[in-house]
Amino acid sequence: MPDIKILTEADLRSLVKLDIAAVDVVESAFRALASGEVVMPPILSMEIPSANGEVDVKTAYIPGFDGFAIKVSPGFFDNPKLGLPSLNGLMILFSASTGLVEALLLDNGYLTDVRTAAAGAVAARHLAPETVHTAGVIGCGVQARLQIEAARLVRPFERVLVWGRDPERAAACAADLGKTLGVEARAEADPARLVAESQLVVTTTPSREPVLMADWLHPGLHVTAMGSDQPGKAEIDPAAFGRLAAYVPDRLSQCRIQGELRVAVAAGLVEEDREFAELGDIVAGTARGRTGAGDITLADLTGTGAQDTAIASHAVALAARAGAGTAFGS
Amino acid sequence: MPDIKILTEADLRSLVKLDIAAVDVVESAFRALASGEVVMPPILSMEIPSANGEVDVKTAYIPGFDGFAIKVSPGFFDNPKLGLPSLNGLMILFSASTGLVEALLLDNGYLTDVRTAAAGAVAARHLAPETVHTAGVIGCGVQARLQIEAARLVRPFERVLVWGRDPERAAACAADLGKTLGVEARAEADPARLVAESQLVVTTTPSREPVLMADWLHPGLHVTAMGSDQPGKAEIDPAAFGRLAAYVPDRLSQCRIQGELRVAVAAGLVEEDREFAELGDIVAGTARGRTGAGDITLADLTGTGAQDTAIASHAVALAARAGAGTAFGS
Repeated sequence: MPDIKILTEADLRSLVKLDIAAVDVVESAFRALASGEVVMPPILSMEIPSANGEVDVKTAYIPGFDGFAIKVSPGFFDNPKLGLPSLNGLMILFSASTGLVEALLLDNGYLTDVRTAAAGAVAARHLAPETVHTAGVIGCGVQARLQIEAARLVRPFERVLVWGRDPERAAACAADLGKTLGVEARAEADPARLVAESQLVVTTTPSREPVLMADWLHPGLHVTAMGSDQPGKAEIDPAAFGRLAAYVPDRLSQCRIQGELRVAVAAGLVEEDREFAELGDIVAGTARGRTGAGDITLADLTGTGAQDTAIASHAVALAARAGAGTAFGS
Repeated sequence: MPDIKILTEADLRSLVKLDIAAVDVVESAFRALASGEVVMPPILSMEIPSANGEVDVKTAYIPGFDGFAIKVSPGFFDNPKLGLPSLNGLMILFSASTGLVEALLLDNGYLTDVRTAAAGAVAARHLAPETVHTAGVIGCGVQARLQIEAARLVRPFERVLVWGRDPERAAACAADLGKTLGVEARAEADPARLVAESQLVVTTTPSREPVLMADWLHPGLHVTAMGSDQPGKAEIDPAAFGRLAAYVPDRLSQCRIQGELRVAVAAGLVEEDREFAELGDIVAGTARGRTGAGDITLADLTGTGAQDTAIASHAVALAARAGAGTAFGS
């Protein structure tokens, strides 16, 4: 049997950057999703109530990619009490022609962070107004930082506003972003004002209540909501759906279950079976997103196995080029 | 983060034997299944039609086990043309209290072979007549050998009969079994006669047509059917259901979809919603299997994630005791 390549989190952090190459490979996965030839089964999900834990398994086969990834993402929410991170996990890349294991990517969630932020950049590239002066972010965790870094790869804004429930954490996030991006960055205490001053807003919270209200929306705004990844979560006031020129799910079937769409349907504001073009359709040019400078648009990102296959393939290609990782006889 | 233990197929073959310890750990998983506290989500399954491939992911959390396994089993059926095995795969053992990866078991399907045969031994231990003089096996592949080896751990029979479509392969299988077990073993050209002379029969084929007919059944026979693991497969003439004192699925919900039960329901011989005690209920003593020497019994084994968690935990415990495997900083 051929050797298996093992890449640690340290290997992956030095190889895989949140850059245009990562955005492009994730974009290619969305384009493939639109072709209808991707095979992406529903997420396998298991709860372990005794440990306040859960584990999700995602996968997708994308024609044109030599491999497919299986990603295992455990979330054990009492871990911080033990000094351990809540989120962990790994990806396995298999050959799509033989099913043999090609690489084990012990990323502890790092590649998920990158592919999630890269999807935000894909959404911004195709849906945000051409010119963004100010980007706003609601939430101040890892994805708040990465989403804003990713967005700036495609919209070179000059200013960032950060809102978070904890003003100190919001200030720290703004300071980090200002330093990393070399732009003006500050915490904004009023989320309505943050939205009013921004042309692009990303919501990055695990909230179960709206953090962005419908009457804050203004012409020429694009919002990417990426925090909801479970049926109980949602960030956007469902009344916002009445004001959108385009609602763009990453995967419609998934957003009906665990995206912002779920809440809008539950509130009776959107018909249950209404069809929407997906982000991939807009990337592929078979559907239109923003049609004018005054449109209000919303991208609903719940995370897809196709992104995992894309980023894992990208990581393994970079590792091969760099001669990185450890070969392991199986 | 703590180190991850990596165990190769060679490590695992030298550590994990098909012995009473393996049978007992798999039996404990069945006992736990009966408790109702096991969490075992439906199998995640993805087809890759362009490569004649498929991949299945199974998992289960069993209270009382410190870890849970996720098993990824690719089957790529054109691989033999490339000189590669069709079936591969690996297991990952996670801590059930923190979700951290504890071990990667690069077993290429070896542990699945062992846990599948061990389940056959559990079925034989609880369902076969006390005294078995002759055991018969239908099929002559790896599982034919392993099922008979496993059965002999719990029923020390003196003779083995083997039937296969290819007489040469059947003879080779019989020769192997005779040598391994030190018992009389021969190929039997007539499967009806094989059944007539046996008190325990295991069917191990990927057949889509019955290989064991209802009118071959006789009082005091136990049959374990372990070949069917997909909705298209089945080995037992569904008319057999009319003659059984006990039909015992490994997991009822799964056997309704991909076991022998599926065909019996489709043929109108068993009501769709009929309840049956599972193997775990019989192990736990909450249901009865064989009630007398003349009973005819059938165990329907489709393979469960609980067995994977059991065998992976067993393998990692043996590795720890032996100091085997490679520790890998993550």
